Amino acid sequence: MDTPGDAPRQSGPRGGSERLDGFTAVVPAGGSGTRLWPLSRSDSPKFLHDLTGSGRSLLQATVERLRPLAGDRVMVVTGSRHADSVLAQLPDLAPEHVLVEPGPRDSMPAIGWAAAVLERQDPDAVLGSFAADHVIGDVPAFHGVVRQAVAAARTGALVTLGITPTHPATSFGYIQVGAEAAVPGAPDLRQAEAFVEKPDAQRAADYLAGGAHLWNAGMFVVQARTLLELLEVRHPQMVRTLRDIAADPDLVTSRWESLTRIAIDHAVAEPAAAAGRVRVLPARFAWDDIGDFASLAALLPESDEHPGLRVLGPADHVLSEGSTGVVVAHGGRMVITLGLADVVVVDTPDAVLVTTRERCQDVKAVVAALQERGRGDLT
Amino acid sequence: MDTPGDAPRQSGPRGGSERLDGFTAVVPAGGSGTRLWPLSRSDSPKFLHDLTGSGRSLLQATVERLRPLAGDRVMVVTGSRHADSVLAQLPDLAPEHVLVEPGPRDSMPAIGWAAAVLERQDPDAVLGSFAADHVIGDVPAFHGVVRQAVAAARTGALVTLGITPTHPATSFGYIQVGAEAAVPGAPDLRQAEAFVEKPDAQRAADYLAGGAHLWNAGMFVVQARTLLELLEVRHPQMVRTLRDIAADPDLVTSRWESLTRIAIDHAVAEPAAAAGRVRVLPARFAWDDIGDFASLAALLPESDEHPGLRVLGPADHVLSEGSTGVVVAHGGRMVITLGLADVVVVDTPDAVLVTTRERCQDVKAVVAALQERGRGDLT
Repeated sequence: MDTPGDAPRQSGPRGGSERLDGFTAVVPAGGSGTRLWPLSRSDSPKFLHDLTGSGRSLLQATVERLRPLAGDRVMVVTGSRHADSVLAQLPDLAPEHVLVEPGPRDSMPAIGWAAAVLERQDPDAVLGSFAADHVIGDVPAFHGVVRQAVAAARTGALVTLGITPTHPATSFGYIQVGAEAAVPGAPDLRQAEAFVEKPDAQRAADYLAGGAHLWNAGMFVVQARTLLELLEVRHPQMVRTLRDIAADPDLVTSRWESLTRIAIDHAVAEPAAAAGRVRVLPARFAWDDIGDFASLAALLPESDEHPGLRVLGPADHVLSEGSTGVVVAHGGRMVITLGLADVVVVDTPDAVLVTTRERCQDVKAVVAALQERGRGDLT
Repeated sequence: MDTPGDAPRQSGPRGGSERLDGFTAVVPAGGSGTRLWPLSRSDSPKFLHDLTGSGRSLLQATVERLRPLAGDRVMVVTGSRHADSVLAQLPDLAPEHVLVEPGPRDSMPAIGWAAAVLERQDPDAVLGSFAADHVIGDVPAFHGVVRQAVAAARTGALVTLGITPTHPATSFGYIQVGAEAAVPGAPDLRQAEAFVEKPDAQRAADYLAGGAHLWNAGMFVVQARTLLELLEVRHPQMVRTLRDIAADPDLVTSRWESLTRIAIDHAVAEPAAAAGRVRVLPARFAWDDIGDFASLAALLPESDEHPGLRVLGPADHVLSEGSTGVVVAHGGRMVITLGLADVVVVDTPDAVLVTTRERCQDVKAVVAALQERGRGDLT
């Protein structure tokens, strides 16, 4: 396993892949990926799955992407029901680098806990938070932007990465970009005016045309102490509790449930943007949070064997005739599609879902319906 | 188990259900039902399956339908690979009433063998041949027509039952009806002019409008000796071989493969019709050979729980939202359809098929494709 003292493993012409001193990657590994049911389950959420056919889970790919920058300074924050799976998938991860939440409290307590742990080690430590279930296309480009973000974070800003939109997406939030705010080492830095919620189609088209909005990918780079200071403005009790837990990890059992359930966007990013404390780095690498099966399909290559169809799973488990769409063959069985356009078939050992690209956002309602019927065991 | 000496179990007001002396029901249980794959397999063809949700297989329902007319004079002719399943499903059937073909030779050798066996017992015996995988809606009406057919067969005719068309079907052959030919006990009897092959859509519409064509359901009622006499005209060697096998059943092993592979329609019915030896009884009961999943869907009731969807299998294994079509839930798992019109989903333990009503005739090609790929184990 790499240690901080090792030589950098890769270094591109952009110089983006050199190890960054004092930088720790924090990977919140949570969320259930309900719209990817029955592939993603509450016991086996999407970050534990290989959704791209790469041979690695999203979590493994995320950590692997961060290692060249962070070395072994990678922390994963995950729920108690997934801790064993996380450790099994990441055998090189030191157990003390896995923070195990007794229960889900959304992203702010998770990232805040990591910040409080790091602050005790080094108040100037810079952390970068990157979700365990996102896909990034151009890793050297990602490294280059994170390098700028770390430089910018050292000035005391909360830095976010904003993805340059490639289509008028309505399933992402946006970041409104303001004036240039370059600092040494971060020539592309801009002021972040505001975080805006998921728009309707018209507004999304306006954002795309206007060029002043980026996708909010939930990536934050910030000094540990800065994050806690910004959090303290509205949630001083949370900061006290997180520092107590960082000082005495045994307290997590008794104190965790007292923490407010809130996302980092609402707890810190939005108010900090309003206070002029947020910067944004426009990023041009391909990015997706694989929110549903349409997103998943778009990330998979079209196979020679099944023209028009994307396949996740063994190609020889799929037979397709006159069909387009996506087939997930994870049931260990043969899946045959015949004469269906834009179909979504997700086969697993105990459930098979058949829908269309158009309706795949509604998979969430299927999960709710199963729970209502007393079939929560399947979700 | 009933014996010929028992009192009739049922007798409707039409008097159609009384046991018929000297009548034997012959049930050819063959065919693979390729268009019902993956439900129907070569090792487990459609006659072994409950395709109507009745709780009985098509074979069991066929035999049960014939018992009131034939008592225990029911013979099943089936292939060696299915004999055990047939006996398991019909524990009341005497083993000597199951004729086991060493290999498939189509329907003429199968029915001819039964005729040769019966001829040795009683040359005047009347046999009625009814496929093991057809569905009949109105059993008392069926009994009434068979009763007339047996009376007509005693006059030395080959009698077939013709189903009154309810739509311009292109997937059935037709029988062209001629003049009235009533005999005592068979007031509805007509001359059968000819058997005509599956028509195109235009001709099927003409047949339906014209009123002189009935569906050929492959049901024949005939004296054993008459059938062999008609067969002898073109296939004298086949008749000799069948009589030899009937005299010494051990010969079936060595002689069976020498028999011509031919359907009863071509070997006997068509030439006999041309010779004026065939009569037909128009039948108005609902009938279907469940040729594909569209036919299967039409036979299933629309459930309250899944409006617009037909379900075969446990209703609580299906969750449907905004979908119409048919789901076969035989995989022991949950099947979910979301936002699909006229969909066909057939779930089994080792294969799942997703197609549309429109394309379900093409399932046959899927089976061929699997065989080409070396996955004959699934077919």
